[in-house]
Amino acid sequence: MAKWVYLFKEGDASMRNLLGGKGANLAEMTKLGLPIPQGFTVTTEACTDFYEKGRKITDEVREQIFEALRKLEEEQGKKFGDTEEPLLVSVRSGARASMPGMMDTVLNLGLNDVSVEGLANKTGNPRFAYDSYRRFIQMFSDVVKEISAEKFDEIFDGIKEKKGVKLDTELDADDLKEIISQYKALYKEEMGEDFPQNPEEQLMAAIEAVFKSWDNPRAIYYRRMNDIPSDWGTAVNVQAMVFGNMGEASGTGVAFTRDPATGENKLYGEYLMNAQGEDVVAGVRTPHPMSDMKEENPDIYNEFVHYAEKLEKHYRDMQDMEFTIEEGKLYILQTRSGKRTAHAAIKIACDLVDEGLITKEEAVARIDAKSLDQLLHPTFDEKALKEARLLGSALPASPGAAAGKVYFTAADAKAAGDRGERVILVRTETSPEDIEGMHAAVGILTARGGMTSHAAVVARGMGTCCVSGCEDVKINYAEKYFTIDGETVKEGDYISLDGSTGNIYLGDVATVEATISGNFDRIMHWADEIRTLKVRTNADSPADAANALEFGAEGIGLCRTEHMFFEEERIPKIRRMILSKTVEEREAALAELIPYQKGDFKGIYEVMKDLPVTIRFLDPPLHEFLPTKEEEIKGLAADMNLSVEEVKATIESLQESNPMLGHRGCRLSVSYPEIAKMQTRAVMEAAIEVKQEKGYNIVPEIMIPLVGEKKELKYVKDVVVETAEAVIAEKGVEIEYHVGTMIEIPRAALLANEIAEEADFFSFGTNDLTQMTLGISRDDAAKFLDSYYATKIYESDPFARLDQSGVGQLVQMAAEKGRTAKPNLKLGICGEHGGDPSTIEFCYKVGLDYVSCSPFRVPIARLAAAQAVLNNK
Amino acid sequence: MAKWVYLFKEGDASMRNLLGGKGANLAEMTKLGLPIPQGFTVTTEACTDFYEKGRKITDEVREQIFEALRKLEEEQGKKFGDTEEPLLVSVRSGARASMPGMMDTVLNLGLNDVSVEGLANKTGNPRFAYDSYRRFIQMFSDVVKEISAEKFDEIFDGIKEKKGVKLDTELDADDLKEIISQYKALYKEEMGEDFPQNPEEQLMAAIEAVFKSWDNPRAIYYRRMNDIPSDWGTAVNVQAMVFGNMGEASGTGVAFTRDPATGENKLYGEYLMNAQGEDVVAGVRTPHPMSDMKEENPDIYNEFVHYAEKLEKHYRDMQDMEFTIEEGKLYILQTRSGKRTAHAAIKIACDLVDEGLITKEEAVARIDAKSLDQLLHPTFDEKALKEARLLGSALPASPGAAAGKVYFTAADAKAAGDRGERVILVRTETSPEDIEGMHAAVGILTARGGMTSHAAVVARGMGTCCVSGCEDVKINYAEKYFTIDGETVKEGDYISLDGSTGNIYLGDVATVEATISGNFDRIMHWADEIRTLKVRTNADSPADAANALEFGAEGIGLCRTEHMFFEEERIPKIRRMILSKTVEEREAALAELIPYQKGDFKGIYEVMKDLPVTIRFLDPPLHEFLPTKEEEIKGLAADMNLSVEEVKATIESLQESNPMLGHRGCRLSVSYPEIAKMQTRAVMEAAIEVKQEKGYNIVPEIMIPLVGEKKELKYVKDVVVETAEAVIAEKGVEIEYHVGTMIEIPRAALLANEIAEEADFFSFGTNDLTQMTLGISRDDAAKFLDSYYATKIYESDPFARLDQSGVGQLVQMAAEKGRTAKPNLKLGICGEHGGDPSTIEFCYKVGLDYVSCSPFRVPIARLAAAQAVLNNK
Repeated sequence: MAKWVYLFKEGDASMRNLLGGKGANLAEMTKLGLPIPQGFTVTTEACTDFYEKGRKITDEVREQIFEALRKLEEEQGKKFGDTEEPLLVSVRSGARASMPGMMDTVLNLGLNDVSVEGLANKTGNPRFAYDSYRRFIQMFSDVVKEISAEKFDEIFDGIKEKKGVKLDTELDADDLKEIISQYKALYKEEMGEDFPQNPEEQLMAAIEAVFKSWDNPRAIYYRRMNDIPSDWGTAVNVQAMVFGNMGEASGTGVAFTRDPATGENKLYGEYLMNAQGEDVVAGVRTPHPMSDMKEENPDIYNEFVHYAEKLEKHYRDMQDMEFTIEEGKLYILQTRSGKRTAHAAIKIACDLVDEGLITKEEAVARIDAKSLDQLLHPTFDEKALKEARLLGSALPASPGAAAGKVYFTAADAKAAGDRGERVILVRTETSPEDIEGMHAAVGILTARGGMTSHAAVVARGMGTCCVSGCEDVKINYAEKYFTIDGETVKEGDYISLDGSTGNIYLGDVATVEATISGNFDRIMHWADEIRTLKVRTNADSPADAANALEFGAEGIGLCRTEHMFFEEERIPKIRRMILSKTVEEREAALAELIPYQKGDFKGIYEVMKDLPVTIRFLDPPLHEFLPTKEEEIKGLAADMNLSVEEVKATIESLQESNPMLGHRGCRLSVSYPEIAKMQTRAVMEAAIEVKQEKGYNIVPEIMIPLVGEKKELKYVKDVVVETAEAVIAEKGVEIEYHVGTMIEIPRAALLANEIAEEADFFSFGTNDLTQMTLGISRDDAAKFLDSYYATKIYESDPFARLDQSGVGQLVQMAAEKGRTAKPNLKLGICGEHGGDPSTIEFCYKVGLDYVSCSPFRVPIARLAAAQAVLNNK
Repeated sequence: MAKWVYLFKEGDASMRNLLGGKGANLAEMTKLGLPIPQGFTVTTEACTDFYEKGRKITDEVREQIFEALRKLEEEQGKKFGDTEEPLLVSVRSGARASMPGMMDTVLNLGLNDVSVEGLANKTGNPRFAYDSYRRFIQMFSDVVKEISAEKFDEIFDGIKEKKGVKLDTELDADDLKEIISQYKALYKEEMGEDFPQNPEEQLMAAIEAVFKSWDNPRAIYYRRMNDIPSDWGTAVNVQAMVFGNMGEASGTGVAFTRDPATGENKLYGEYLMNAQGEDVVAGVRTPHPMSDMKEENPDIYNEFVHYAEKLEKHYRDMQDMEFTIEEGKLYILQTRSGKRTAHAAIKIACDLVDEGLITKEEAVARIDAKSLDQLLHPTFDEKALKEARLLGSALPASPGAAAGKVYFTAADAKAAGDRGERVILVRTETSPEDIEGMHAAVGILTARGGMTSHAAVVARGMGTCCVSGCEDVKINYAEKYFTIDGETVKEGDYISLDGSTGNIYLGDVATVEATISGNFDRIMHWADEIRTLKVRTNADSPADAANALEFGAEGIGLCRTEHMFFEEERIPKIRRMILSKTVEEREAALAELIPYQKGDFKGIYEVMKDLPVTIRFLDPPLHEFLPTKEEEIKGLAADMNLSVEEVKATIESLQESNPMLGHRGCRLSVSYPEIAKMQTRAVMEAAIEVKQEKGYNIVPEIMIPLVGEKKELKYVKDVVVETAEAVIAEKGVEIEYHVGTMIEIPRAALLANEIAEEADFFSFGTNDLTQMTLGISRDDAAKFLDSYYATKIYESDPFARLDQSGVGQLVQMAAEKGRTAKPNLKLGICGEHGGDPSTIEFCYKVGLDYVSCSPFRVPIARLAAAQAVLNNK
């Protein structure tokens, strides 16, 4: 028979997966001899079993719960529902990872009309007993039965008003009895049955509520944001009550062994005498800093510091502890590794290394890689934020905080930026045409599009804050305003965006600039010593490249050439190329683009010096380059000596039903080899010139996108090689160059052994590979992904975290097949996933050579790559 | 050293792959002792080698050619380019499969200014010699050097005019010498060099030309249409000339051992005395039927009949033979299994079985499955067709021939159809809204969309002729006309479409109705005895289902429920469902649809009786159901009590960037489970009612589309099962039902083992699976597939013939993984590929249980399924 329930004294810290973090630590502290109110833990396996059985707790689990309860009663010398020595317990959730969003706590469970008298008798404090009972009814009703707490507050306030008192403490036992009576009536009205008097029934309801709360929308959302699998489940801790509200010799508090905001090595926390935990949280009275206790109650303080130091040394990490003082006796209710800011995390990790408590490897393993984002981008001033009006929330598409004036077109945004204004660009969605407006903006808000929409990808590349896919935003372009949450925001009005949380605020919220400490460099240096994966960056300009180099990038894994064509001077030339009717016309138009492309590449080579640079050839469908506005179409027609109708006909003929699966990528070079020729010439001439001018050893890597068949790659590669050899011959300079391909079409992964024969390297384009493998257009996914999260079909955004079992299967297959055909094949990833820690670990495990991500994610990737090594030792 | 060249006497019929069909048969006939002008064959491997070496014939091959030539000279006692006994040869291509489109023949090769004198001396017939030489120069220039034959004709006609004669035979030797002189001058002008006088140089140029012709666009097109791989290559046959133009005792002809049009067992063919093969083809003189020879030259006739019978018995198939009579002696130049109409193929196969020459299995194996289309659809009257003006050609999307008046909207088409007109619906592309107009049409022409576009799929389902993707068609909807090839076709004008060839003709071309013979049933019956794959059909209505049953369908593999919603009465209701703002509104709207859906299903069950019916739940994105025209939007708004803006906003909000990868398939049921509930109720109530009313054993198969994840299928399946069980309980009737899924997303194939745990069956949706695995939108593919064919990257349309190495790999993987998890998992295919013979063979090999295809393809599938067994014995 499976063991579903453990007494605290039966467990220890190593049993975290089974007992949850809270349960395992309570067991460990019991073992360490700390003063812990005893109790038992219902395991995470019982939670999983609950769901497997169709949300039912089996009799077997139930029996083990009551068996543990009997032992607890025996040990405490108290009895559940007893008139003389009633046992009261708290019931709390406790998952493997600390997880807000779930049911938190029910206190004072076990009270009923009978045991409340027992408690009154035993403590000689009827007011305390009835106060505990009314708290319990309200908390149980709220947390377990989801009856709105406000309804109870109304009753409570009504009695206070009737009595003409202001403070809760001014109510006496009889008032509280009246309140209890009204509370029970409310409960019956809401639930259609009496408030449960049987403590066992109360307990089972509370345990069931904890299990169910594992699956509420907030918890699902939190798991998705933090890569926590839904099959972990939560444990439930049932613990004998101790009371901080038994008088002035009692109290309760929370403390951290170090400052969780700064990392400073100093006890940090607050407490409140004659209170239960909820009073501290509710803010009815202001808690005191721990330093006060040192003076007011030095014995308890010293005892607490003793435990705190013991626990920090024992766990070798900063601890977050809850404690209660019951009539002068200190109890520890909980300890856990404390949540901290990224800044504090880095300082604490470095300090613990310096204190000899942990190794450098442990320090590296301790930092949440994703949290580094906080250090690299501005954040909102916390005080200012509290006063700001939240308008809505959408996808945290590119981190950082920004406030500025709203503009609705790229042109308006650019003009305002030129005037020196801080600009927030608000668009239904962005397209490559908007690039200059995006550059001018400090923040970007879109109504449509996911984490890997155009807006999101470009914003991350530029390090600009972006919130995407806010479907509540309804834009009226004609009259230049948008509405959200009943508010109308006009052009020029201030809004503020938090790209790390996805929140949208009204007004000009103050921001705080990012600062990077010396400790950050220490951690990065240690990470670099550990990791084996190289970290490259996705950068399309010398500025992006320089930025990424500062963050430690070791090359460019993806240089997208199409972004280069959208600048004002260049776009007419690419349009001319698209509208050409003969190969000759097209070649002539392309010839005009060579100097620009060459200039771009030279700039990038000069920044990157001897580091590798992978240049991806033209990828998007050609219609993305064509104008959509009547006026621009007319201009283009005049420019090209064509009729407006002809230009419109071309634009129309290039429209596609599913552009993602259309005429793009290497398909363009198969139809128009002259495009590949032009790009090859620009790449090679730039490389040779920089080599000659600066003496760097440039080895260009040309990457052919959207390949699905070996012959297709060979066809384009033949064009590239022929052109490259011609340039080499013209210039008379020997230069090495590589030609490889993206693996982004499922078929390319399935036939990677064949494709590898023609490729010097593979780079996994996991954005497109995810779209095609899952059959989900990332631009349209927002329409239904929420239903998928709500139903737990998906637990994370497949465009942010690689779908390892599906897409990952193809990546692994392609890596193996590719290396079988060509053992020295270089393998990398350049999709958005390249900056996601869990994906980086996957890349390490399947043996890739490098990951490539946007410049601001390079430090995250360096850290995650080191953690991947440590996790898989 | 490889052997690249075989003398005829070194080979036999079994060496077809190496020597090509023509070469192998010449060798076989040599072995049989027939009078064959001797020669040698350059192998297909030499052709492949030619391409591998960058279109070069290696010295090794060249040496073997001349070695064989020397042996031929010796045997014939003649010498290449000799003044006394010149050896002349013909050079012909000959691939493994007979293949029009390649270079055909060069006759009289070996003639030059010297050997022509030798020929004149030896034959004592200078006119014959110079005539042969001028023919050779023209043919060599045309076929090998691609100089337009017309330019030679001009010279020839000029001399005739100058001499004032009408017939070629009226020119004498001197005239011909003059012609030769002018021909050579023309050659020099065109080629910048003298006409080659060295016979060896002539020979190598001709062989090279044959090799190159393997890769000309016509040959590539033919291969694509007939599933011939490009790496087969062609052989080249070099054969000593015999002359049918040496006088009245000489002649040439072509004959079939049976009638290739009807299959009648009777020698059929024609011949011409004093002529070379080209004269028969050119139609300068009218050839005589073979029956004339019987009277005019009974000895030769009887000898020929003797050989014909011998060859037919030997090859056990109808033969297509070429022969030449040189001064009274009969030579056989070629024999091959003759091309024949589908009608003749069936008759001949049955007759050969009855004659005891072949087995039933061989008869089944002999019929080209694809050709059966001809028997099931009307065709154009051949005589009428010759007079029709061809306007253009596009994709043969749905077979058959049709002529009618042009209409441009579904409504106009329907109105005209109601008036009794024959209607051709011409659209840029069709959408589900056009369904009634498509039903009213006898033919459909679209300017956009591939073989599996909406128009194509629906047309094939209905058995209506369709030509799709004709990009030359430019429609002006406003003024109701289209232009093509300089012609303007207005509403009401007649055009004619051949859906089997893709041709578009001007005017009302007469058609001939299809007729099916008793022999057809015999072949089908034999095929049924052999095959193990079941054949189902894709049918959405009782009429389609009844049609398919007549063609031998054994169930419905795909019943698409969305087509049912487009009828006039129903579409407002589905629109109301889409515009609903609450679950209750949506349920109310859906409730109104139940009676219609139930009626549809009852109709289908009643037709199919005890046969299985697989019903696919709603698949397309919802925006496909919404109106696009201002007027209809207004109507809908009024109907729904909404503002026009609200309706427009909903339409706008449902727009998708890539609808193929959007909110569709089971994703609809995850967002709106009430849709699945409604459909389940309709399916189950219909099944139970038909079971009760008619006593059939109905076992509904409910198919969930677009599944990519086990939890997704489970979620929808739970809704289905809950509803189905509720209906069963309400009705109090036990009924079996199955719930399965489409495998059409790559991830579903990769995780088929997991998905199988929730599925009773898999049906491979290879249309979507192809789109996603290859990353190609079928609606947009026409834009670039032509470049892919031209560059030989693709050899066939992946939407018509399954990409076995890519998509097939996923199908096989899914079949294996699925059966590993659930050994009795039923597997089928319901994509368009289910009617393609090569795909059917693949399905047989990977162990599927059934294929499902459009009704008119059912006989093809039955035959192909039998051939799959025979090919893999």
